[in-house]
Amino acid sequence: MTASGSDSLVALAERLQGICLGSGLTVGTAESCTGGLVASSITDVAGSSGYFRGGIVAYADDAKASLLDVPGDVLAGHGAVSAQVARAMATGARRRLGVDLAVSVTGIAGPGGGTAEKPVGLTYVAVADGADVAVRRFVWRGDRASNKVASAEAALELLIERATDQPAPGR
Amino acid sequence: MTASGSDSLVALAERLQGICLGSGLTVGTAESCTGGLVASSITDVAGSSGYFRGGIVAYADDAKASLLDVPGDVLAGHGAVSAQVARAMATGARRRLGVDLAVSVTGIAGPGGGTAEKPVGLTYVAVADGADVAVRRFVWRGDRASNKVASAEAALELLIERATDQPAPGR
Repeated sequence: MTASGSDSLVALAERLQGICLGSGLTVGTAESCTGGLVASSITDVAGSSGYFRGGIVAYADDAKASLLDVPGDVLAGHGAVSAQVARAMATGARRRLGVDLAVSVTGIAGPGGGTAEKPVGLTYVAVADGADVAVRRFVWRGDRASNKVASAEAALELLIERATDQPAPGR
Repeated sequence: MTASGSDSLVALAERLQGICLGSGLTVGTAESCTGGLVASSITDVAGSSGYFRGGIVAYADDAKASLLDVPGDVLAGHGAVSAQVARAMATGARRRLGVDLAVSVTGIAGPGGGTAEKPVGLTYVAVADGADVAVRRFVWRGDRASNKVASAEAALELLIERATDQPAPGR
């Protein structure tokens, strides 16, 4: 049994933990549409306190501004579900949490909230590592629950890729 | 299917949402041992953005200080798993998130980290509502996953009780 309910998420979290404990990297999270599921999956694994420092669930737009320093003009100009906001969330989380790698997720889980331009399932995932910020765009086709799990999986996969590529800390 | 994996948690989150949307109360979370599971359960319910503003997962002690303003002397004097730190986390989250009700959870999920004085399963849950802070102590007897779910259930139950007791906002 896993508290967060998805064996695939916990398997990814175990891989991430192995890489980060091996290389001394610290990790944090900034979540909107996943609502804490990435952090919860990471902390399903015993020993996660060895590399996971914490996370911020910025569900409301003003929480993205006040807790993650997402600039108001970026939110107003691009909307909360955008590559620009995903980048700003990851960068803000990395600084606020004082970690080597911070991942962010912002999207429209559904069933409501979609538009022609930004459909239900549209999701951006970003990882900031200090040198740069990688962003990916997805459009999931499932229901709210499966979109949320898919977004959390994508976040953990991007974290694993970036953690694997990192030089040793102290760079 | 629920993304967070526990039907009991989502049922509690649905009850909380009904009460808060009906009374106009806003809610936030401050989580340590549950690692985001309370926030993730709340956001499993469509329409949760109508009352849930966000949450902070303060896994490391310095995240409790920097993100939730838990005083260093309270952490040092009582330990991270204590009624005093649970109170300070809830109070800090309420202020940082700008919400009517903030819940906090701090505990030892296991399997490691227990002592004779503070065994695995020891958990404190607190809710701050502006007038005061209610704290409860539990000692769960399960494994890491079931302790995490039990702690999240206790947090949602305490939120429901306090939300039910609130006077109308704007008091």
